Amino acid sequence: MAQKPSVPRGTRDFSPVEMLRRNYIFDTIRRTFSLYGYLPLETPAMENLTTLLGKYGEEGDRLIFRILNSGNFLADVPLSALSSADIAAVTQNISEKGLRYDLTVPFARYVVQHRDEITFPFRRYQIQPVWRADKPQKGRYREFFQCDVDVIGSNSLLNEFELIRIIDRVFSELNINVIINVNNRKILAGIAATAGAGDRITDITVAIDKLEKIGSEGVRQELLQRGITPEVIRRLTPFLSLRGSAAEKIAGLKREIAASPEGEKGISEMEELFSYLDMEPSQAKVVFDLSLARGLNYYTGTIIEVKAADMAIGSICGGGRYDDLTGIFGLPGVSGVGVSFGADRIYDVMLNLGLFPEQTGSSTSVLVINFGGEELPELIKIAAALRGAGVATELFPDAVRLKKQFSYADTQHIPLVIIAGSEEIKASQATVRNMKTGEQTTVSLSALPEFIREAKNR
Amino acid sequence: MAQKPSVPRGTRDFSPVEMLRRNYIFDTIRRTFSLYGYLPLETPAMENLTTLLGKYGEEGDRLIFRILNSGNFLADVPLSALSSADIAAVTQNISEKGLRYDLTVPFARYVVQHRDEITFPFRRYQIQPVWRADKPQKGRYREFFQCDVDVIGSNSLLNEFELIRIIDRVFSELNINVIINVNNRKILAGIAATAGAGDRITDITVAIDKLEKIGSEGVRQELLQRGITPEVIRRLTPFLSLRGSAAEKIAGLKREIAASPEGEKGISEMEELFSYLDMEPSQAKVVFDLSLARGLNYYTGTIIEVKAADMAIGSICGGGRYDDLTGIFGLPGVSGVGVSFGADRIYDVMLNLGLFPEQTGSSTSVLVINFGGEELPELIKIAAALRGAGVATELFPDAVRLKKQFSYADTQHIPLVIIAGSEEIKASQATVRNMKTGEQTTVSLSALPEFIREAKNR
Repeated sequence: MAQKPSVPRGTRDFSPVEMLRRNYIFDTIRRTFSLYGYLPLETPAMENLTTLLGKYGEEGDRLIFRILNSGNFLADVPLSALSSADIAAVTQNISEKGLRYDLTVPFARYVVQHRDEITFPFRRYQIQPVWRADKPQKGRYREFFQCDVDVIGSNSLLNEFELIRIIDRVFSELNINVIINVNNRKILAGIAATAGAGDRITDITVAIDKLEKIGSEGVRQELLQRGITPEVIRRLTPFLSLRGSAAEKIAGLKREIAASPEGEKGISEMEELFSYLDMEPSQAKVVFDLSLARGLNYYTGTIIEVKAADMAIGSICGGGRYDDLTGIFGLPGVSGVGVSFGADRIYDVMLNLGLFPEQTGSSTSVLVINFGGEELPELIKIAAALRGAGVATELFPDAVRLKKQFSYADTQHIPLVIIAGSEEIKASQATVRNMKTGEQTTVSLSALPEFIREAKNR
Repeated sequence: MAQKPSVPRGTRDFSPVEMLRRNYIFDTIRRTFSLYGYLPLETPAMENLTTLLGKYGEEGDRLIFRILNSGNFLADVPLSALSSADIAAVTQNISEKGLRYDLTVPFARYVVQHRDEITFPFRRYQIQPVWRADKPQKGRYREFFQCDVDVIGSNSLLNEFELIRIIDRVFSELNINVIINVNNRKILAGIAATAGAGDRITDITVAIDKLEKIGSEGVRQELLQRGITPEVIRRLTPFLSLRGSAAEKIAGLKREIAASPEGEKGISEMEELFSYLDMEPSQAKVVFDLSLARGLNYYTGTIIEVKAADMAIGSICGGGRYDDLTGIFGLPGVSGVGVSFGADRIYDVMLNLGLFPEQTGSSTSVLVINFGGEELPELIKIAAALRGAGVATELFPDAVRLKKQFSYADTQHIPLVIIAGSEEIKASQATVRNMKTGEQTTVSLSALPEFIREAKNR
């Protein structure tokens, strides 16, 4: 008992100050999602293991937190498994549920389970924590939040366009300069096919993905190491050297790509997407990045990745189109597209670049000093009037020394303090102290709410 | 794969419609908490079992969901425990973490762990799910949300007063008629002492707690069954028959209670609390209910319980003062008071009484019909202008039959549809259809955002 209690490794408490900042991010994201017609959805923290297992690869399965069955959970375990300490066999028998690992698989499960109640296209967003039994390290937690926004049941590229608009709007409201990189998986397939190595698309794109980091000669070496022939590399070279605007790259692709129906489809999709983007310009730079690969096995069309322009921290948002998300649960052929915002990294970027507005320091605007005398009924009325006017107000509950009450306002970053002792109350007035400037103003009680509202907005 | 996937027993998905309604409740609660200077806090879903165990009684310990250790979790289990299938011994060795069971213990853990960073009085609210391995039944879930609001580190009864004001404001904003029952644990102790049975306080209060249900003769029988002597019961009777306003009950208590310092303290606390309540009247009835007992072992002063006036569903909010919440983690003598709102029951009351406002039906105000023709750039501009004016707008992504698009607006409860084909666009106008009345209005494109904003607020 003498030792301080703590939280499990890789998990965190969010203090009020952190919560106010996180809510500022979440509220901005949520407001923008709503503005584009996306609706909230939440799924339970626990899912059946039959839902989760086999969806994230072998490594993913290992990282799922499993819930011990309640009651006599050993009853169903074969004695042979127990006595041989056979982990796999025992685990299978003592646990049926796990904590969700991401928001995508629960979303697919939801769509299949509720397909008869859902109207398509189904636009949903989901902001919830996920859990992974990863080794905790700086910036990597075992509990962290994902903010996913997806539309399912529509092939239209207007969806991709609006998701890019959403990304642009969220980061512009948060004051984060970003670069939005876009590519299309079908184009990557077309390039690989043109080079005569359609079956080597994974090796080729993994190498190309490093273009920014290691340059074109580096990519060449990497491709050779992966057993791509010099002839294939020679045919890839024109694509790697495409430069310029999206329109210029599209023109270049059209010139260089061999007859590949998939590649041509990808090019026409990019052409259509950029035509929409031209109709409503973004604040952020939207770049057609031919080296962007991102989760190939999963995505089937457009892929999107967002980077902070002013801080090297990796991707802070990303996603793309998938043509068979719900197939794993027996509902094939439903196309969707979505992106996920990385709340923790966005938080880190904003903290690092000092982008949190001052108002996220505290949600309370006013502290009323408590003198503990006959003026108390009037102080209660003052607090009531301010709250009635929508001003978040605290009346200090204990009549302790003034110094302690002021110091409380200070550490809590409460910007305004109201001092109304019995003398002031008799004169029907109060003194308002601005905690930042130290400036004090005497105001009549009746004018107080209006004065505070104005002072608050200054 | 053919079988539809499902969620674990006792857990729920929250569909968009349910989420909009739940958020309406949570937003109202959160806004009110902020107005009184309470700040948000969140703790991890998982806590160490050392934090959780022993805090909820034996039954509670059994109901905690345990997380299986990662990796080779059988390595630490003694072979003897395995081969004898000793549940307790095995459990202890294969699981170190559990899902939080309530928000109170994590809060106490937080306060002790972060005591050096916290400024007292510490006002926090916490709205998060909790998990209990209870047998699921109607209205009882294995995952459900709690909304706790507590202030810790202040003995002042102004805190109790403000919590009652918060309760009153939340339910009045939600349009739920409630009765707020208040009592004080010290008074119950004083009554038991007066009756000469201070050591039987639990039996006495458990019986008195049933007064409303079984009447005073029923309480008499129950007390006898619990082995309370007729003499003690005779001495209790005057308290049970106290009627009238809070002031009248206080006067009666003063008259009847024997010299009991604890009882007198309780009476003076109630007197002070009701004097504050007189200064700022509540919309709801606040009743001094001498039969209210509620979780005796835990509370040490004021106790509060809220019931819906128009629906029999049990308590929808409750709490009280505790003098030693953090003692379990080695920080004794910190007094606090708090209440918890039951989100699920509040939801049920509102659904049952039809109290959800219409706006919780959908968060999207406008659907722009997609004709798939040359007018598309203009439709994109219309949607952009509306969103710029803060109007949640969808542009239907696919140029499918009009009937399908209108039916989408209908099932999604989107109140307004904009019809702007190439003819309308050429004339720089659009038709706005009110989906409820069927009324159609032709509006010039430039006046559209203003028109929609007004139509939306009607």
